[in-house]
Amino acid sequence: MKLLRVGTAGAERPALLDGAGVLRDLSGLVPDIDGTLLADERKLAAVRAAAAFGELPRLDADGLRTGPPLARIGKIVCIGLNYHDHARETGAAPPAEPILFLKAPDTVVGPDDPVLLPRGSVKTDWEVELAVVIGRTARYLETDAQALAAVAGYAVAHDVSERAFQLERGGQWDKGKNCETFNPLGPWLVTADEVPDPQALGLRLWVNGELKQHGTTADQIFPVAEVVRYVSHFMTLHPGDILNTGTPAGVAMGHPDPKPYLRGGDVVELEIDGLGCQRQVFLPT
Amino acid sequence: MKLLRVGTAGAERPALLDGAGVLRDLSGLVPDIDGTLLADERKLAAVRAAAAFGELPRLDADGLRTGPPLARIGKIVCIGLNYHDHARETGAAPPAEPILFLKAPDTVVGPDDPVLLPRGSVKTDWEVELAVVIGRTARYLETDAQALAAVAGYAVAHDVSERAFQLERGGQWDKGKNCETFNPLGPWLVTADEVPDPQALGLRLWVNGELKQHGTTADQIFPVAEVVRYVSHFMTLHPGDILNTGTPAGVAMGHPDPKPYLRGGDVVELEIDGLGCQRQVFLPT
Repeated sequence: MKLLRVGTAGAERPALLDGAGVLRDLSGLVPDIDGTLLADERKLAAVRAAAAFGELPRLDADGLRTGPPLARIGKIVCIGLNYHDHARETGAAPPAEPILFLKAPDTVVGPDDPVLLPRGSVKTDWEVELAVVIGRTARYLETDAQALAAVAGYAVAHDVSERAFQLERGGQWDKGKNCETFNPLGPWLVTADEVPDPQALGLRLWVNGELKQHGTTADQIFPVAEVVRYVSHFMTLHPGDILNTGTPAGVAMGHPDPKPYLRGGDVVELEIDGLGCQRQVFLPT
Repeated sequence: MKLLRVGTAGAERPALLDGAGVLRDLSGLVPDIDGTLLADERKLAAVRAAAAFGELPRLDADGLRTGPPLARIGKIVCIGLNYHDHARETGAAPPAEPILFLKAPDTVVGPDDPVLLPRGSVKTDWEVELAVVIGRTARYLETDAQALAAVAGYAVAHDVSERAFQLERGGQWDKGKNCETFNPLGPWLVTADEVPDPQALGLRLWVNGELKQHGTTADQIFPVAEVVRYVSHFMTLHPGDILNTGTPAGVAMGHPDPKPYLRGGDVVELEIDGLGCQRQVFLPT
């Protein structure tokens, strides 16, 4: 299923994009799309059945904003330098074990919402990422099968990053990863049954129409199952948590000087196979 | 006011400790103690008036667990190496600007709840910290007065830290700061009007009855107002967010070898002047 949330920011309603590409209203069936729903297999089955039997009312998509596809996100755990080609372009050795950092859930906006360049920013960078949405509590997992069973679905995430804040302002990447609007998410939460192999997804990102990132999750140093299993030994993952699993090569920081960091008016578009597209205008604050 | 939340985990009710030390039930007046309440000056005034006029029903404190004094925490921004004496003991130069990292809200437990030693942990350490609770949106603040106006109150926080996870497992401190139960908070949220000078608070921490940390917020490299102002230029702070403002000297990591990291059965007690006491038993997972 492709689950989404549409409407004005903070007042989105749950919806579903059916097999024919028609937007369907879920608000009569579930209060919202969040960890509580993702952990409730019976409710998810009811949604699936209603969709299959054509019981969901049509929603007029015209002029409707798409919000982030998940409400009440608990935490966002990010994996740093998780693609071989991206590690190479930054001059870093591939990490021996996953690098973890956090983004606060309040950085999340809809897939097509504007992104604000922080005041004083001169190194705002793009990063297309596969987001993994957790549907079952994950704690000290042992096997890949357990890890994948904890995954409710996948989405496109944009891990916007201010490199000067991240790397030149005194330690810990979080400082450049948590500016407001720095985590566009969506358009859809695609349930895991529709993503048979999360390690075979192409990721692409354009800036002002020019292709900048063109990678595949096959190049991930630590694949999704390994990342979920690993993180579960350091933090308990709960339904409604998200993992941003890293970005492939092609970020501004990886370019020769002068590096093409984002400026006011720039348009970034990104997509992942089967998970949909995002489009953001970057604006000064 | 001393606001708190009492009852079983996940089902706490809001309460107030009055001037005579009597526990009072707030559940008839407010649904919970969270960012929504802290941002609502009229509601806070109503609580204050009800307390002053003796209108709040008594609550029997016997056998009642104290939960964390704040529900629905948005994010926890932590300041690293923020005391001169702690920077010295770790061998680090005082940072030129605040070091920021994040703890996820799901690490928060009550002040006297057990803390779980992560599996495989050999370097779990203690850190008594002054927690600053945000009551008003803080975004690109310019002055100390604006910063302090955004503070709703203060609490005791225990920033439990696994040093091997934090420092020896491949980058970014978050990895050793986000294990489950790693952020005991409370007992009270003391409103800012009762903390006339947040830079004049003694902090103390004992392990198995032995005093290990004995500092004062006067030794903070970046005082509360500066920290709130600074963070607001990198992240937007919202009502219900928390800042853990760093720990004074005396952590296990600062001791000569063999360093006295925590083991199963150890008891840690901590307190800050005017903000109450915590007591945790550390248990193996």
